[in-house]
Amino acid sequence: MKKDLLDTLVIENDTKIVFLILDGLGGLPLPGADKTELEAARTPHLDALAKGSICGLLDPVCYGITPGSGPAHFSLFGYDPLRNNVGRGLLAAAGIDFPMKGNELFARVNFATLDDRGIITDRRAGRIDTETNRRVCRKLNENITLKKNVEVLFEPVREHRALMVLRGGKLHEELADTDPGTTGMPPLAPRALTPEAEETISIIEEVREKARATLSDEEKANMILLRGFAHYRRYKSLRERFKLNSLAIANYPMYQGIARLLGMTVHPSTVSVAGEFEALEENFDRYDFFFIHIKDTDSRGEDGNFEAKVAAIETVDKLLPRITALQPDVLVVTGDHSTPAALASHSWHPVPVLLSSPTCRPDRTECFGERECITGGIGRMPMVNLMALALAHAGRLKKFGA
Amino acid sequence: MKKDLLDTLVIENDTKIVFLILDGLGGLPLPGADKTELEAARTPHLDALAKGSICGLLDPVCYGITPGSGPAHFSLFGYDPLRNNVGRGLLAAAGIDFPMKGNELFARVNFATLDDRGIITDRRAGRIDTETNRRVCRKLNENITLKKNVEVLFEPVREHRALMVLRGGKLHEELADTDPGTTGMPPLAPRALTPEAEETISIIEEVREKARATLSDEEKANMILLRGFAHYRRYKSLRERFKLNSLAIANYPMYQGIARLLGMTVHPSTVSVAGEFEALEENFDRYDFFFIHIKDTDSRGEDGNFEAKVAAIETVDKLLPRITALQPDVLVVTGDHSTPAALASHSWHPVPVLLSSPTCRPDRTECFGERECITGGIGRMPMVNLMALALAHAGRLKKFGA
Repeated sequence: MKKDLLDTLVIENDTKIVFLILDGLGGLPLPGADKTELEAARTPHLDALAKGSICGLLDPVCYGITPGSGPAHFSLFGYDPLRNNVGRGLLAAAGIDFPMKGNELFARVNFATLDDRGIITDRRAGRIDTETNRRVCRKLNENITLKKNVEVLFEPVREHRALMVLRGGKLHEELADTDPGTTGMPPLAPRALTPEAEETISIIEEVREKARATLSDEEKANMILLRGFAHYRRYKSLRERFKLNSLAIANYPMYQGIARLLGMTVHPSTVSVAGEFEALEENFDRYDFFFIHIKDTDSRGEDGNFEAKVAAIETVDKLLPRITALQPDVLVVTGDHSTPAALASHSWHPVPVLLSSPTCRPDRTECFGERECITGGIGRMPMVNLMALALAHAGRLKKFGA
Repeated sequence: MKKDLLDTLVIENDTKIVFLILDGLGGLPLPGADKTELEAARTPHLDALAKGSICGLLDPVCYGITPGSGPAHFSLFGYDPLRNNVGRGLLAAAGIDFPMKGNELFARVNFATLDDRGIITDRRAGRIDTETNRRVCRKLNENITLKKNVEVLFEPVREHRALMVLRGGKLHEELADTDPGTTGMPPLAPRALTPEAEETISIIEEVREKARATLSDEEKANMILLRGFAHYRRYKSLRERFKLNSLAIANYPMYQGIARLLGMTVHPSTVSVAGEFEALEENFDRYDFFFIHIKDTDSRGEDGNFEAKVAAIETVDKLLPRITALQPDVLVVTGDHSTPAALASHSWHPVPVLLSSPTCRPDRTECFGERECITGGIGRMPMVNLMALALAHAGRLKKFGA
């Protein structure tokens, strides 16, 4: 769609839109088998919903492209994933609700273990607990002072993951990761991806040297690996673009972070899936748009555990009546991308989607599954168009042209 | 897809990708009948393959647009057919592997027959044999010298077709064809399509006059008709863009030419279809990507011969087990465009495609045919995306974004 056409057509009303996102929903049969995880799962409520909905298949970015969670979620909410390829550092910062002033350079930190020769032996420092993470961050913050009036701050996230914040002076984000993504070699030296970014290299080098010295007496977390250097970047909010007052219900910092970047109110983590549905019920009167994020489907897919992913889908199906009982005007059920257990990773396969609303035209879909969605009324489309369809079915778009 | 996104995601591995291209594959039923050529053909091997593949329909350029072979093939290989509309002259030069320095202006030549009044009576000079073509080209080269330090060279291609090469000075390509595409009128005078190209007109005029004089004693080939003026243009190769070491197996100069422009190694012509399959077997270990071009399907379609096109498809089906026995990681079977015998010409109808690989998700296709492909897992998509899908299924694309 032409940039921002959608935004110019938005009108406000009192309808409710729910996006139920089963992360990594799309799947594949195991070798020799015939059914995907979603097709194999017993999902009476999703099937009944699909029968009265329009179904289809969504490409998160483009044919053949396997997306990370960042671009995939931007696409879900109607933001071009190519023009909004948000850096991991910024996602990490938004994920812990770091108070951004706008002049920071962020990076995602992994605490790692190096041996005596400086070789990485564990990229996750034995998955240290969050308490140790807090202690190590504090130690870094107390001991590292940089030249050149640049301030550095380490903020714990969870287990071995932290956020690094640099502030002061002109800092460039076009920097390669120092995390080599593998063990058996030393961390990579900082490297600039543009000539201008060269001037930031010495600062990163200084941070790394001082971090190494400060952590030298740590048994596990004795080094930092840096990924996804990114500046703060302001995104138009769902309110600014679509006049939606929105609530995000997600239990993982990264998805909460994406929601925050798009101006959603973020509900506190509820720990369980049932807790997320409860949060929806409790807040249904107070918002127009609800993003409920289910992580287990993706996690079990990444584990390569077909049966566990099936079970995660069935868990959501059992809870679905709690959403339909609220009678949202538009209910969308889909994923951000596919994570087939057969591949144990994100993949490029299109994602099944259903959109339920009173203005759905009948299609041929009898149940909710990938091959069934081929003959759905939505057809196969770029995911970035989903928000426009949802707004239309909610009566929130006026006519274009005379 | 955003320009070059694909290229930035490519990784190398040791998988094999085969593109089996049946030129002009898509068809139509004859008037009053119900089945297309592909649907009417007995194709047990293609049908079995389709059942386990993802199928779909490809638009070579855009809805309703009938492509020439040049843009259609560029689209097949993942090159935007609109930004890469290669001139016929350049295709002719690449087709005979003319050694290009980069400063040439090429045109495709048809030898034609004019009557005493200068009216075209045969646009193909009675399809003179290639031997006569060689003699006539030699005669032109020996007798024509141009003013202004411009050099002209005629290179025989086949039958009545040749290549004209101009070299020296600033030569413009924005020139209209002198071939009127019909008989009963004189050749068209050279005409510039841009103001700058005016300065090249006098050179073309001089070549034409001197060619007419030189060939005045020829019975059949007594004039040249010029088409598709084009400069040399460098294209990024399949290796540069996709890290593919590729082999083209095609029996016609034009398709060999396209392959050469894209940096493929071109196998010598094998004359027969079976010879092409043999060439694949013999070279399977030495390349990553194989383009096998079958011309007969298009030729019989152009002839308007439905039964002969059916037979050409069946010939390929019988040979298909020789490819599947090699167990390529990705096997794509499709055409570059449709050539329905009912129209006896290229057409705009989308082209059936099947993509076979272990990571295909089950779809609803039971056999290989146009209407069956409507419910295929690929859906209907622009042909230019095919290469991305093939690379994805070969595990040759990394994830986009965090």
